Amino acid sequence: MATFRITLAYDGGAYVGWQRQASGTSVQGLLEDALRDLDGRDVAVTGAGRTDAGVHALGQVASFAIARTIAADALARALNARLPDSVRVVDAVEAAPAFHPRFDARSKTYRYRIWNGTAMDPFERAYAWHVSGALDVAAMDAAARRLEGRHDFAAFQATGSDTKTTVRVITSSRVVVTEGTTGGRLIAYEITGDGFLRHMVRTIAGTLVEIGRGRRPATAIVDVLASRDRGQAGPTAPACGLFLVSVDYGRPCG
Amino acid sequence: MATFRITLAYDGGAYVGWQRQASGTSVQGLLEDALRDLDGRDVAVTGAGRTDAGVHALGQVASFAIARTIAADALARALNARLPDSVRVVDAVEAAPAFHPRFDARSKTYRYRIWNGTAMDPFERAYAWHVSGALDVAAMDAAARRLEGRHDFAAFQATGSDTKTTVRVITSSRVVVTEGTTGGRLIAYEITGDGFLRHMVRTIAGTLVEIGRGRRPATAIVDVLASRDRGQAGPTAPACGLFLVSVDYGRPCG
Repeated sequence: MATFRITLAYDGGAYVGWQRQASGTSVQGLLEDALRDLDGRDVAVTGAGRTDAGVHALGQVASFAIARTIAADALARALNARLPDSVRVVDAVEAAPAFHPRFDARSKTYRYRIWNGTAMDPFERAYAWHVSGALDVAAMDAAARRLEGRHDFAAFQATGSDTKTTVRVITSSRVVVTEGTTGGRLIAYEITGDGFLRHMVRTIAGTLVEIGRGRRPATAIVDVLASRDRGQAGPTAPACGLFLVSVDYGRPCG
Repeated sequence: MATFRITLAYDGGAYVGWQRQASGTSVQGLLEDALRDLDGRDVAVTGAGRTDAGVHALGQVASFAIARTIAADALARALNARLPDSVRVVDAVEAAPAFHPRFDARSKTYRYRIWNGTAMDPFERAYAWHVSGALDVAAMDAAARRLEGRHDFAAFQATGSDTKTTVRVITSSRVVVTEGTTGGRLIAYEITGDGFLRHMVRTIAGTLVEIGRGRRPATAIVDVLASRDRGQAGPTAPACGLFLVSVDYGRPCG
């Protein structure tokens, strides 16, 4: 048996999320189906981040062990030949048998994309949240930076979640603007941390947009954080704007 | 009657092209349907460039005259409310009654996008041509620049085309690389000229890729041009990689 670590990009629009569900197509399920076809047996796939329904990935990391002897690049090609074109293996390397994509991850980076303009850019309609009207990006960035450090993020967790601890360490939380080409601009919120609660990035994004709209001052995010009350935060931003950008293992792993 | 000039962005993937056809959905047809609904009468729409089936636009320009009195920004909103989200009016201004989007255009800019990597980027699969294997971008750019100036582009015109003259003036023809994020790179071919023959940009792109692959030297493009023979050029690159970027009128028009 050889263990492999793969890096995946996927357009999550058509899927129920990373994790296999009772019904609907999941990215994990697609991979397990492809690996069963390739290895002639059931293969369990573990992912670094359980992206929700409709969430995209540029650099999801997953691992599995297979019986078949195959070079890493040939494995990537064989999987891509069996996966839909919305899911691509962009890298594959052999890993140590003990490698675990989630437990071994040092940090993960997510990006939340907002299209700010009167008309939605048709090329962004599946990949960004459309927010029309003025947005104060400087206030959004100032608020975002307040989240850096070690905090209890209970206020930004989906209600009904059952997590041992809601404390996370955020090493970077920033809002940047990229000029658009069709009468609008793309605002990206990028956050890196040691772990994320359910809907955390989307709830932060929804709160940042309320701040950008001037409904609350930038400093209000500190009060939301301190409240540990989901009711104090803004709405959960739509899934289509969220991307799992990368998973960092801090060292060449495997 | 008031004449309007609108700028449009569209994802052409689902359409038979700009021009209304006997069957299938066209962008012109969608606009004319929306305008009939808005103006209560048949409205003819003229476009600057007749993009083919599957070709996209960031800045197509169109014009029409309507009886209804409406401000330009309200017109843009009313049209967007009646169009599918793959077609957006990104700008609308009132224009002189004599304004003609095609005849008044000084130049048009097209971009042809190539994803160069082993695995196709899932977010580019509808917006770029996937070319795997090594591509010599310097050779492609050198060849592209040879097309600048006044030339007879008959060799790059779709066979069976019936055009008065195949001479066009190309003011810029360049190949640039943007680094990608998922194990590949995006190569963009951008061309500006006073007019384009049918399939011209896609046939140039197909020829540039043959040069990039080392199948012909960069200078071969001069011989292709001189031959005036479509059989000497490379294959027609797929429609999904082509974007009408902008139409230049050289002055504030209207």
